[in-house]
Amino acid sequence: MSEEAPAAPAPSGSGDAPEQPSKNALKKLEKEKAKAAKKEAAKARELAERQKKEAADAADVSADSYGELPLCGSKDFKPTGTERASLTNIADYEDKEITFRSWVENARVQSAKLAFLNLRQGLESVQAVVAASEKLSKQMVKFSGSVSTESTLAVTGLVKRVKEPIKSATIKDFEIHITKLFVEAKAEVLPLQVEDAERPIPSEGQEGEAQEGDDARPLVGLSTRLNNRTLDLRAKINQSIFTIKSGVCALFVEFLSQKGFIQVQTPKILGAASEGGANVFELKYFDRPAYLAQSPQFYKQMLIASRFQKVMEIGPVFRAENSNTARHLTEFTGLDMEMEFQENYHEVMGVLEDLMLFIFKELNSRYKKETEFVRSTYHVPDFKLPESGKVPRIPFPEGIKMLREAGEDVNDLDDLSTPQEKHLGRLILEKYGSDFYTLDQFPLAVRPAYTMPSPTNPQLSNSYDMFMRGQEICSGAQRIHSSELLAEQMRKHDPPIDPTAKGTKDYVDCFKYGCPPHAGGGFGLERIVQFWLGLPNIRMTSLFPRDPQRVEP
Amino acid sequence: MSEEAPAAPAPSGSGDAPEQPSKNALKKLEKEKAKAAKKEAAKARELAERQKKEAADAADVSADSYGELPLCGSKDFKPTGTERASLTNIADYEDKEITFRSWVENARVQSAKLAFLNLRQGLESVQAVVAASEKLSKQMVKFSGSVSTESTLAVTGLVKRVKEPIKSATIKDFEIHITKLFVEAKAEVLPLQVEDAERPIPSEGQEGEAQEGDDARPLVGLSTRLNNRTLDLRAKINQSIFTIKSGVCALFVEFLSQKGFIQVQTPKILGAASEGGANVFELKYFDRPAYLAQSPQFYKQMLIASRFQKVMEIGPVFRAENSNTARHLTEFTGLDMEMEFQENYHEVMGVLEDLMLFIFKELNSRYKKETEFVRSTYHVPDFKLPESGKVPRIPFPEGIKMLREAGEDVNDLDDLSTPQEKHLGRLILEKYGSDFYTLDQFPLAVRPAYTMPSPTNPQLSNSYDMFMRGQEICSGAQRIHSSELLAEQMRKHDPPIDPTAKGTKDYVDCFKYGCPPHAGGGFGLERIVQFWLGLPNIRMTSLFPRDPQRVEP
Repeated sequence: MSEEAPAAPAPSGSGDAPEQPSKNALKKLEKEKAKAAKKEAAKARELAERQKKEAADAADVSADSYGELPLCGSKDFKPTGTERASLTNIADYEDKEITFRSWVENARVQSAKLAFLNLRQGLESVQAVVAASEKLSKQMVKFSGSVSTESTLAVTGLVKRVKEPIKSATIKDFEIHITKLFVEAKAEVLPLQVEDAERPIPSEGQEGEAQEGDDARPLVGLSTRLNNRTLDLRAKINQSIFTIKSGVCALFVEFLSQKGFIQVQTPKILGAASEGGANVFELKYFDRPAYLAQSPQFYKQMLIASRFQKVMEIGPVFRAENSNTARHLTEFTGLDMEMEFQENYHEVMGVLEDLMLFIFKELNSRYKKETEFVRSTYHVPDFKLPESGKVPRIPFPEGIKMLREAGEDVNDLDDLSTPQEKHLGRLILEKYGSDFYTLDQFPLAVRPAYTMPSPTNPQLSNSYDMFMRGQEICSGAQRIHSSELLAEQMRKHDPPIDPTAKGTKDYVDCFKYGCPPHAGGGFGLERIVQFWLGLPNIRMTSLFPRDPQRVEP
Repeated sequence: MSEEAPAAPAPSGSGDAPEQPSKNALKKLEKEKAKAAKKEAAKARELAERQKKEAADAADVSADSYGELPLCGSKDFKPTGTERASLTNIADYEDKEITFRSWVENARVQSAKLAFLNLRQGLESVQAVVAASEKLSKQMVKFSGSVSTESTLAVTGLVKRVKEPIKSATIKDFEIHITKLFVEAKAEVLPLQVEDAERPIPSEGQEGEAQEGDDARPLVGLSTRLNNRTLDLRAKINQSIFTIKSGVCALFVEFLSQKGFIQVQTPKILGAASEGGANVFELKYFDRPAYLAQSPQFYKQMLIASRFQKVMEIGPVFRAENSNTARHLTEFTGLDMEMEFQENYHEVMGVLEDLMLFIFKELNSRYKKETEFVRSTYHVPDFKLPESGKVPRIPFPEGIKMLREAGEDVNDLDDLSTPQEKHLGRLILEKYGSDFYTLDQFPLAVRPAYTMPSPTNPQLSNSYDMFMRGQEICSGAQRIHSSELLAEQMRKHDPPIDPTAKGTKDYVDCFKYGCPPHAGGGFGLERIVQFWLGLPNIRMTSLFPRDPQRVEP
């Protein structure tokens, strides 16, 4: 409650100035006097406090060298002109001053005169020391050692070489002797520790238990991590995964651009559910239904019919499949390509194999550090490639034969199950020394209606899958480029597809006007990353994964 | 009906061989004799036909040099080992034999001994001659001159330099003297002529009318072209537009990669309609509703909070806006970037300006041919860039002042209308000599709730738009990186946004844990292409455009 009662309202009709002050006015005057006195007292208190603070600041020789900065951008923040360094270049700063942004992995006060911080920036971390001296106050030591974990800092210090390699940081040979430390953005208490996100996800049933041979911290399950994804993603392991994922995209485009491919964007909203209509998300499109594209298949072929010759696309693919496995997502990134060929669809398989060999080779050199970092956490062996440089290209019937000889009960014309695929992967690795290979000439009946039948056996087809560590990453084929044959195959397909249906007709008809023979393939980007790194779950390779249970965050 | 009656079934119990032929068996024997006689007669006919054909073939010295090839891939097609050339290298083949795939722009029989074809491949076209000689039959001349327009051919011939430049082809100095011509895929009668697709779309009300000063062909409207898009796209003007579009993507990634940005893929399916909920497509996600992302805004900021430092994304953006204008699509391609900055959001504006200058410069060199080809059809002036190399950066209040001085009635704190934007574009071009510029410090009230208020004037904000030829291509800003301030601004926003709502809470909360200051921007890829080329309609820059009326093909 206020100590002052509200002033009574002035009597109505007192518009003209009265000669004598009224009773009310007198009361008001008294109150104003009291108010003024109080104000003065407050001023005096304020002054005393300020003087006290100034005295303290005068004692704090570091007063201008640490503290919390105001919210950047909401105050007029003048550029200092100081260059902010990248920690990857720290060796250039030996015995020199460095200024950089970083965030706090942890901070601790060792003594009144000494604090340590582990500071991170990107994939690097460095040890920093705050030591009291004539030029650096104990107040600053205390402040620095007490900064909350994950706060963002602007730090200045001297780069010093250390004698003993530092274990707790990625930068082993240098430490920072801090001279200035400002908090740019203070972190609240964290619902998920970033250091917990660095550790492997538990195997089934292992959640919440400490990992064998490790310290006592429990393993945090994938679901908890994904619920706190913006903290989870700060872990070096996750930054590595997504740096590699970005790299795969860049390498895909780099290789195919050099081969004359152009990047295209095909529509993701379709007027009709094509390709049979199963597993398609339906949406409200103004006053009618529409559907999300489950692949760019029809459109990339329509572009070949449009004389684009060689096209590639990186884009989202949507599958309304109620699969809750470690390798399915309802939204993933398709790396698609389609090209005309001159004489034989094996020309296209050659491009796809060379593409993947290029990506693997460059991941091994340009993303070596990230790859090794992730694999070491999950104890994953290297990804083996054939010494000959020739990718094993196994005809499907030969694959069946290998599996039968290894005791599997498989039919000639059935698709392989996931365990059978994995088994075949082990057999091929043993025989050819390669974790990457192609199965060619799949049975026609297990492939989409637009697949070109085989010239040698009408029960087979000019189609192929590519595998990494025994798991499928790419499906592709020569496509039928005759409108007539395509319509016939669609009608004969199980289930049959009506070639004159809305959304299908435009596709079937486009092959009436002189379309060249063509083939292509579609990769799942997340699967490439998952199997390259040997990760246990595909969700780990999607920034904000989507599955039947999860559409958030 | 069959001439033969079906044989009567053998009596039951006739399992043992009878000694005497039964009546039925005799009848059967007679029938078999008759059948054999018929077979022999058929054989004789077949032989006669074959001999006749062989005689004709003997007369046709070119019998093996032309014809229709079987459907490639459905017969066992052996690779010939012949290299198929690109017409861009034609000069290397002077006086030599060349083999290449091409398609027929037109074919005509000049006389019994001479046929001409215009052949296209990519953006090139070449004239080809088929002349009867001792080695080349009149039959082949007739066949070659009668091939239907848009059929795909495999052609072999001699490359000869011509004396007079050829007007009707892009290759002026050479022609092909054909020695072999095979139809790989025959085209049916076309519903849209590709040469019509080369000509400009009519202005409003001009559809179906012949263009002034042109020949008598009517102009074909955009809608007809889009309904036959796979033929329309074959036009050189369209191949040029999409080559440039691919180039803009590549240049965007090239520039930002060098600056340390990584490519990300944010989800397009959202569990809640964020950013206010207007203009969002709703879909059925298993047993619940979900929504299509209208921008990667929340997610790219969440990645900055996740310490990704610099991210870029190329991906589809969905807007359920019932706008039927020449510059709106319901699905377009967003070129998005977001980055932390050190001291001032103008650092980020500088990156965006340099990015666009890089793209323009490289389009002018790497895509000069395509750019000039398209602009010449629509008589579009060059895209002017400031000679100083410094992009005009106009504070919003200065823009208002310029418009007022030019007679426009504008308020200080209102957004500009499209005609006002275009007017300002003309004024800035006049004053600064640049078709590209930035407006900075927009009124806070007309920007999204997450926009950082200006440090100098609380009614303004640290936000900017970028323009090409007076039309907006990019919107960007410094974003609020304090969870507290963000929640406050959301509540104060018109209309208010609940910071604790599903889909919004994760976003607001992510700024609690030490997020660095950051800014970014989102470009519309199709708009960059449209305004670079000066095209009258944005649909021309989308392969298969989507608008409120069109979801097909």
